[in-house]
Amino acid sequence: MSERKEFRDLTEPAKAHEAIASLELDPEPETVELADARGRILAERVDADLDVPGFDRASMDGYAVQASDTFGADEADPAVLDLAGAVHAGSEPDVVVDAGECAEISTGAVMPDGADAVVMVEKTDEAAGEQDAIEIRTSVAPGDHVMPAGADIAAGQRALGPGTELTPREIGLLSALGTGEVEVRGKPTVGIVSTGDELVRPGGELNSDAGQIYDVNSYTIASGVEEAGGEATLYPHAGDDMAAMEEALTTAAEECDLVLSSGSTSASAVDVVYQVIEDRGELLLHGVSVKPGKPMLVGRLEDSAYVGLPGYPVSALTIFRTFVAPAIRRAAGVPEPRTATVEGTLAAEERYSEGRTRLMPVGLVENEAGETLVYPVDKGSGATTSLVEADGVVEVDADTEYLAEGEQVRVTLFSPSVRTPSLLAFGEDDPAFSRLLDRLGSSRFLPVGSREGLRRLRDGLPDAAVVAGPVRREVEAVELGAWEREWGLVVPAGNPDGVEGFGTLIDGDLRFVNLDTATGLRASADAELERLAAARDTDAADLQAAIDGYEFTLKAHESPARRVLAGNADAGLGLRATAEKLGLGFVPVDTQTVRVRANPARVEKAGVEELKAALAGIDDVLAELPGFTDA
Amino acid sequence: MSERKEFRDLTEPAKAHEAIASLELDPEPETVELADARGRILAERVDADLDVPGFDRASMDGYAVQASDTFGADEADPAVLDLAGAVHAGSEPDVVVDAGECAEISTGAVMPDGADAVVMVEKTDEAAGEQDAIEIRTSVAPGDHVMPAGADIAAGQRALGPGTELTPREIGLLSALGTGEVEVRGKPTVGIVSTGDELVRPGGELNSDAGQIYDVNSYTIASGVEEAGGEATLYPHAGDDMAAMEEALTTAAEECDLVLSSGSTSASAVDVVYQVIEDRGELLLHGVSVKPGKPMLVGRLEDSAYVGLPGYPVSALTIFRTFVAPAIRRAAGVPEPRTATVEGTLAAEERYSEGRTRLMPVGLVENEAGETLVYPVDKGSGATTSLVEADGVVEVDADTEYLAEGEQVRVTLFSPSVRTPSLLAFGEDDPAFSRLLDRLGSSRFLPVGSREGLRRLRDGLPDAAVVAGPVRREVEAVELGAWEREWGLVVPAGNPDGVEGFGTLIDGDLRFVNLDTATGLRASADAELERLAAARDTDAADLQAAIDGYEFTLKAHESPARRVLAGNADAGLGLRATAEKLGLGFVPVDTQTVRVRANPARVEKAGVEELKAALAGIDDVLAELPGFTDA
Repeated sequence: MSERKEFRDLTEPAKAHEAIASLELDPEPETVELADARGRILAERVDADLDVPGFDRASMDGYAVQASDTFGADEADPAVLDLAGAVHAGSEPDVVVDAGECAEISTGAVMPDGADAVVMVEKTDEAAGEQDAIEIRTSVAPGDHVMPAGADIAAGQRALGPGTELTPREIGLLSALGTGEVEVRGKPTVGIVSTGDELVRPGGELNSDAGQIYDVNSYTIASGVEEAGGEATLYPHAGDDMAAMEEALTTAAEECDLVLSSGSTSASAVDVVYQVIEDRGELLLHGVSVKPGKPMLVGRLEDSAYVGLPGYPVSALTIFRTFVAPAIRRAAGVPEPRTATVEGTLAAEERYSEGRTRLMPVGLVENEAGETLVYPVDKGSGATTSLVEADGVVEVDADTEYLAEGEQVRVTLFSPSVRTPSLLAFGEDDPAFSRLLDRLGSSRFLPVGSREGLRRLRDGLPDAAVVAGPVRREVEAVELGAWEREWGLVVPAGNPDGVEGFGTLIDGDLRFVNLDTATGLRASADAELERLAAARDTDAADLQAAIDGYEFTLKAHESPARRVLAGNADAGLGLRATAEKLGLGFVPVDTQTVRVRANPARVEKAGVEELKAALAGIDDVLAELPGFTDA
Repeated sequence: MSERKEFRDLTEPAKAHEAIASLELDPEPETVELADARGRILAERVDADLDVPGFDRASMDGYAVQASDTFGADEADPAVLDLAGAVHAGSEPDVVVDAGECAEISTGAVMPDGADAVVMVEKTDEAAGEQDAIEIRTSVAPGDHVMPAGADIAAGQRALGPGTELTPREIGLLSALGTGEVEVRGKPTVGIVSTGDELVRPGGELNSDAGQIYDVNSYTIASGVEEAGGEATLYPHAGDDMAAMEEALTTAAEECDLVLSSGSTSASAVDVVYQVIEDRGELLLHGVSVKPGKPMLVGRLEDSAYVGLPGYPVSALTIFRTFVAPAIRRAAGVPEPRTATVEGTLAAEERYSEGRTRLMPVGLVENEAGETLVYPVDKGSGATTSLVEADGVVEVDADTEYLAEGEQVRVTLFSPSVRTPSLLAFGEDDPAFSRLLDRLGSSRFLPVGSREGLRRLRDGLPDAAVVAGPVRREVEAVELGAWEREWGLVVPAGNPDGVEGFGTLIDGDLRFVNLDTATGLRASADAELERLAAARDTDAADLQAAIDGYEFTLKAHESPARRVLAGNADAGLGLRATAEKLGLGFVPVDTQTVRVRANPARVEKAGVEELKAALAGIDDVLAELPGFTDA
């Protein structure tokens, strides 16, 4: 494997920003119809080339008069004027208002010649007994209730400056000016080339046995490009083959202002990309001193700019967001979004000593005092769930080796629209609770298992924990709700091996799949073996050892059943509900209680009260799940 | 005019919200490709239907081993294992790792059978002198550097809840799950019918003499609909003709979830809309107790919801934003945007006593202490420039009759992306200064004339004022820059009337057009007449009276010249630069100085420093403007 992949001379983040800024993505301005202009950025200033309004305009319904005819008029002593005619909005006046006369006029109509003011209709009456005469019960000054031509904006005046973002308000002003189309900043075009033999586009067929995975970066980065004001094009997937990758990269370079390659973490793909950039462009930097994201390339490819993103999705999106999105926004003329930041208290100490700037993804939760607690979300760069389990990033500089619990940190939210979840819960991944979550606002649940859920609740981080089965160490908590679920052994449909319970597994040689010790199902299974051991007057450890696969554990509650479904096991630990959902057989062992337990300090938090209310209405959820009943 | 148009029984804002909420706009969910899913809202929860990763996966480049073979190995005493083969990302392992063996493996590759851990390449070496043997210089535990199948997310687990907005992060997770298309909330369809004989669509030909104006509301409201997550359709413009309007309204009602009519303020159009709603639907309320926006209709039209917006653009957009946009967002499943609010100090007292809730548009400026000053922007509802001159709204409740200067108010910004302008200047609308503005960030300039600019500077509101010509009352200020401009009389090309100066106008009977007394040009013209009066030993007032049209004033500096261009005047007050720009003749009278004067407390404000720097480079601007020179 090549030396350079170790990135021994990493570039400082500031230099990486400079390198990308030097690439100059400069799209041409374009002309768009006003109807399509929302969100675009004005390329040039816009001056009014007509007066708005274009004529002296009545701003009230009433009567157009010569103001001097009304001087002295009041309720007690109205002036009486002859009605000379009427003017309606959208038509040319066919009446002239001479001294002693008036004309009915509607809001928006052209002031007739002669008239210099409008009396509002509420201050007038038809003169009693007189034909075509109007009583005016107030005096008006010249110009009253008249908007003169050009009073809003006059021909020649500057209406909007270059770089203005077109929101409905600016579109309103442009409409008033009669602008049918408008010159806006072009969107930089960004070609996205995903590389790596193992990648399959979402929607395609996956062969996991051959190590294939879905291509996460292409659509993720494409939507990031669009969010930043660019226009993304996905190029057909290129494997690790040099010729195919060169073809994809150079086509993208011909057609786009910027080429992003992204996808593979495999050594051969990285080598090929290097080769193409060195042959047909110029490499400005490779490797930047941030975590996640070290392996980043910046350069030119043909006449286009080029940035190579790391392969792992969290790294790719972090590098894109930190270094590439600002350059796209600059090229598009889109203002940097107001950085939404939140101050919070770190909920657990964090050690770090790699000497690189760290962009630490974190989740947020509000505690009982309304303060924000911040906890790191670090499932490894290869995990895609951490994309949605974090709310923002804490930047930890290269020299900081230790952040203490309770330390104040500043979190940069992923976007200004990110909100702290209304509820944070950890614990057992239970199908009833999972359905309940669909009824809650912006809740977040992390399925870490009962034991870990309780541990986090003890540490005071989550609002609630979901706990199933026997508990070793109690935690002070308030029970919000509980239900029973039937568990046992999931076997192939029809139970071909005649499994009757754990005894069959102990005494036979069937392949079993277990769950992780953090889960409540596993705790119940362990307890069942203790009971069997007592009955057989032996040791539970011996019984466990007698079951083929008792130590082979999976984390997710459906996973053992799915191994059985796939024919890779003869029995798995699981729920009756899972067996029936997957059309498998089920050998019941027992029921266990699932309890939703709240952090006692937070029972009055809105999200917890919302959860409590949802739990009160859980019956219809339980009714739909085989083996689930009220506690 | 009909009784009901006076809206004597206005509805409280809360009731209006209820009426609109009762209309139920419920679009059907739709299926979109993942590439088009950004910004959409998940209609249903998404569960994983496969394990991610789909196989036990190496998370480092290195060697796959049986962990037990490495126990006890370290730098001093490495284990040596036979190299049994290699596994690359994206291919099926064709090697089995037995005890005493290892296989080269790359990040992302499938773990070969037999192996249960990976040793990172940095801790290994090819064994010296031995063919196909690897030195392992560390011990690893089972599972080290392996991401087990389903560790990221496992089949059956809940991935995303209903109502989730799809940002790049969620699109990343959906990609990992292989989701090619996704079920999202439908966008409510909104038909927009503009009514009123006087309205012309932007881009069309305008006949101002007939009182025509451009239709501001259609595109403005359409873009507001899209911003709120709806899909807008503009229906062909309907005049005040009953049949045409009924046709437009009922077609829109057949095709859309919601019909908005908007446009005319004219009585007849309002009457026709009433008639149609009463005949073919149901009117739930008419008139709401807010300002601006009183004339609002809510009802049903055929099977569609209907809201009638006021005709004036500021009123229409305010009502739309306050009452209709939240309903569209709810129907689209789009979360309410985080309301961006700013606390500020009212810069001038405000009286108000109409007994309606007032949504007062305001502008913002930051003072020397970094505090936000808030000033009302009230140019009348008919003005479209106030759409872009305000930054947000202060809600004043119906019972508040008076807000004192210095009172703290809360401003709801028009959107979270609205920023306080970096610079606020008032004063003379000068073409050189106007061009300079194009070089400044987010500046705001209000062309109120020199006199008014000075007055506002004296009151301490703006950062700077632009002042031209003689000044009556001095103001303490810091001069940031100055230049000279040549002014005089703009006449038709070739000066057909042989105008030589004001003398010609005094002694002849040519039609003159003047500028408003707030402008510096007018101040210089007045001074010139004083000088002429002294020379002729008479009174300036007499000379003014002798000029036909001296009292006929316009506000914008190009407007008199444009009257001359249109043939409606023989001479107008103006600049040489304007005359040359419009191809007119020019009779020079004098030059005047334009000074940019800063609020002395704010010379160090960033926006003022930016302005000062721009003024230092004004020479190229002056060079392009005839009659403009350095001061």
